Amino acid sequence: MQPVITAFADSPDRGRGFARDMRVRWALAEVGQAYDVRLLSFAEMKEAVHPTVHPFGQIPTFEADGAALFETGAIILHIAERHAGLLPADSSARARVISWMFAAVGTVEPVIVEREAAGHAERDSPWYAQRLPIIDNRIRNRLADLSTALGEADWLVGDFSAADVLMIDALRRLHGSDLLSEFPGLARYVSRGEERPAFRAAFDAQWAVYQAKLAREARPG
Amino acid sequence: MQPVITAFADSPDRGRGFARDMRVRWALAEVGQAYDVRLLSFAEMKEAVHPTVHPFGQIPTFEADGAALFETGAIILHIAERHAGLLPADSSARARVISWMFAAVGTVEPVIVEREAAGHAERDSPWYAQRLPIIDNRIRNRLADLSTALGEADWLVGDFSAADVLMIDALRRLHGSDLLSEFPGLARYVSRGEERPAFRAAFDAQWAVYQAKLAREARPG
Repeated sequence: MQPVITAFADSPDRGRGFARDMRVRWALAEVGQAYDVRLLSFAEMKEAVHPTVHPFGQIPTFEADGAALFETGAIILHIAERHAGLLPADSSARARVISWMFAAVGTVEPVIVEREAAGHAERDSPWYAQRLPIIDNRIRNRLADLSTALGEADWLVGDFSAADVLMIDALRRLHGSDLLSEFPGLARYVSRGEERPAFRAAFDAQWAVYQAKLAREARPG
Repeated sequence: MQPVITAFADSPDRGRGFARDMRVRWALAEVGQAYDVRLLSFAEMKEAVHPTVHPFGQIPTFEADGAALFETGAIILHIAERHAGLLPADSSARARVISWMFAAVGTVEPVIVEREAAGHAERDSPWYAQRLPIIDNRIRNRLADLSTALGEADWLVGDFSAADVLMIDALRRLHGSDLLSEFPGLARYVSRGEERPAFRAAFDAQWAVYQAKLAREARPG
């Protein structure tokens, strides 16, 4: 049986690959593992059986071999432990990759998500324009450290790894801002990721979901 | 050789156990692994050799067996994989524990940390009083889902695990607010954690660091 992931039936990003199934699809494409997708409405995410798999009612989840995982970090670690190509064999390099995986979702992504959260909840507030520089400077601090750590390397720890999947996909959330262009080394790092065939395959797969939805809606009833 | 962790020489929490070495000390105490502590000044965290271990110049780090880890999620997973007591043997329960570990640091802790970040950077701003309810409601949403998921259970996944170390220590950051008391089941969950002998031992160890610092300062020069 193939693994099954969940994804938005109607993604709020309109297929631009910013929903978090993107990174799981990318990891699966990197290791050549086929998968099925169960598309969920917002009601199904919050009210049906789904919350027993994902306690916060989010996508994606990952079900395989009798296990049900949530959180993209956990899902991608699970995939990386079971297939060659995303985790180094050397134990100290492996420890660094896993450290970077947690850094991507726990240290880098949250300051970027806060920018989006403010855009949703506070854009019409009188303080939004004054708060945005505070948010952006916090992002810059993270990007500066990340840029120093990456240096001239192609990837975070030796060869391409699960850490790069998570970090690059977190950084992609900055595409709507100018912040990434302030760090040319990081902009090139993100591009290197997006140029990988597995990234393209994953992007196309999630794009097709949204295009199919549009086609269904356009069909004469 | 014992593992070596890093911690603040002069913790901004004045020994109240909110610095993130607390959770690593707790995990090590749970499995009965002794460790050494290297105390770092702020300058050492940012400017000396430390940033090659921790790219974001934070504490704690964890060095053992030739590996150098950062991010408390990665460190505690590393400890849990090498000692009995923090990860279940069953593979599907293990996958749930690791999912919850990522949820603690990637989904629950960031909304709590945002409350602290606003307290530091925006407390004197004219909008702080209006923004605080937005921040608190976001925390409440997470706590409500977490409370439902925990239900009447003692711990997140069967027996006490690495997921509880990370989740309880993240929730402890709410001790200065009234939010936790709105969810009595979660307040009891945090208390269950804090009553464990390993928690107490870890708390006392980090408390002693701060007391020693105060004693040094009080000594006539």
